[in-house]
Amino acid sequence: MLPFARVTIIGLGLIGSSIAHAIRANMPTVRLTGHDADPDVRDTAIRLQLCDDIADTAGAAVIDADLVILCVPVGAMAAAAAALRDDLSPEAIVSDVGSCKEEVARVLVEALPGATIVPAHPVAGTERSGPEAGFATLFQGRWCIVTPIEGMPETATERVSDFWRKLGAEVDLMAPDHHDRVLAVTSHLPHLIAYTIVGTASDLEEVTQSEVIKYSAGGFRDFTRIAASDPTMWRDVFLSNREAVLDMLQRFSEDLSSLQRAIRWGKGDELFDLFTRTRAVRRSIIEQGQDDAAPDFGRSHE
Amino acid sequence: MLPFARVTIIGLGLIGSSIAHAIRANMPTVRLTGHDADPDVRDTAIRLQLCDDIADTAGAAVIDADLVILCVPVGAMAAAAAALRDDLSPEAIVSDVGSCKEEVARVLVEALPGATIVPAHPVAGTERSGPEAGFATLFQGRWCIVTPIEGMPETATERVSDFWRKLGAEVDLMAPDHHDRVLAVTSHLPHLIAYTIVGTASDLEEVTQSEVIKYSAGGFRDFTRIAASDPTMWRDVFLSNREAVLDMLQRFSEDLSSLQRAIRWGKGDELFDLFTRTRAVRRSIIEQGQDDAAPDFGRSHE
Repeated sequence: MLPFARVTIIGLGLIGSSIAHAIRANMPTVRLTGHDADPDVRDTAIRLQLCDDIADTAGAAVIDADLVILCVPVGAMAAAAAALRDDLSPEAIVSDVGSCKEEVARVLVEALPGATIVPAHPVAGTERSGPEAGFATLFQGRWCIVTPIEGMPETATERVSDFWRKLGAEVDLMAPDHHDRVLAVTSHLPHLIAYTIVGTASDLEEVTQSEVIKYSAGGFRDFTRIAASDPTMWRDVFLSNREAVLDMLQRFSEDLSSLQRAIRWGKGDELFDLFTRTRAVRRSIIEQGQDDAAPDFGRSHE
Repeated sequence: MLPFARVTIIGLGLIGSSIAHAIRANMPTVRLTGHDADPDVRDTAIRLQLCDDIADTAGAAVIDADLVILCVPVGAMAAAAAALRDDLSPEAIVSDVGSCKEEVARVLVEALPGATIVPAHPVAGTERSGPEAGFATLFQGRWCIVTPIEGMPETATERVSDFWRKLGAEVDLMAPDHHDRVLAVTSHLPHLIAYTIVGTASDLEEVTQSEVIKYSAGGFRDFTRIAASDPTMWRDVFLSNREAVLDMLQRFSEDLSSLQRAIRWGKGDELFDLFTRTRAVRRSIIEQGQDDAAPDFGRSHE
């Protein structure tokens, strides 16, 4: 039994188009409808045959859906929900893929009074954006965190969880505020730091940008991947999960100051101890299948 | 014509063993001798047949070499040089692969009076360490920065440059102090930040280490690779290139504070502008062949 028969994806970027590919691969009998506010994206989606139908309006897209997934930047959720409100079936479940859950839950409940809403967040992505960036295995072996809203039916949570498992993900349930703190450290802070260091490196006077690029294989290039992620999406994430991000950033800055002091005063043992401890974290991530065990993430060396 | 006929590698970790493999692959007639201060590493090198000979002492290893490459942590250069001084041929060129060049040049000149010294730094590596981590293509298409010492013969610089080109690297010449500032931003600062954030994430109270590991695919895992690099090597790098690292760190901290302020005050445009600018840097790195163009560094998604 499939959890849903008619799925509508609103927003056909990397995540939306990957969901479309993954549905085709794993639940080929699902009737799949898509919509994007950008007509160019709709044209591309038609050309790629991402869905059975690409609707010109959000209303037409959702009218007979039993699952509607909002795959738009967090800051665009309210407008996306408002655009489909009048045509949503009372039987439909509305979900999303936003990276902050407390703010999104609040916005969706406000925009869709009476609707059944089950927010979710697949913890997966690449630095690519747009409808051509998606692929069917993006969620394979990755976690999808479902953050139920109090008072919503449990069966809805179960169906959305089942949907993500069918796409290849493993599912965890979490309270929205805890989700936002976990992701602040595992995703939002890393992106913020990556954006910062790439900016810092571009602004030096005596080291040219061309030198930064040439010698990036010494470590810098690892940061540039996530600093190439979608600017709109990430602006919205930082503004929506502000409190948790600022708290994690404060802790990071304290730790960085302490390391700075250890370098200034030549405390080699402190450095060595930290550098030994951090190796174990990498090992665990590989053991749990959340990263590639091959050196350099498996990058080609030819 | 090969630049050297008898090469000795002192220190058989990732870089030393990769040089051995690369010499075998690209200059098979070179007579290759190795030595490591650690008897276990020597045993492994013998088992792997890394070199034609593995000598028990540094002196025996260098006695008839025309190139000696020191592949030990920066903090161990003085001791490694002292151990081979008495047996070094007056015709030999001594080089190294250390990540800081001003301090290493000073130490080698002091330890080896009268010797011909040409410091160099191949900007390549992986998070793996030890004699089993090496592979022949590590330097392929990467840059090797040669930092000549004033007063040393130019022909020696040319022969060392030629040697690295034969191993597949591209060669640049640079003044040692400029090298140290360029690498502070492209390599040392990224490592320092990666070590810090992995430490910060391990120390949280309300987010468990197991959650950090599970949801690391949201960005965090990209940092853990370089935070798994060799602790001894990196302790020495930060202590030896202290001034440049502290300066870059100061600039990074200022930029981070400015971004923190933009988040606190909801300045979305500032965030968006930076996030757009950083995408271009990634594009340049890929265009110049210093990283993989495939999403996620080409990580497997199966």
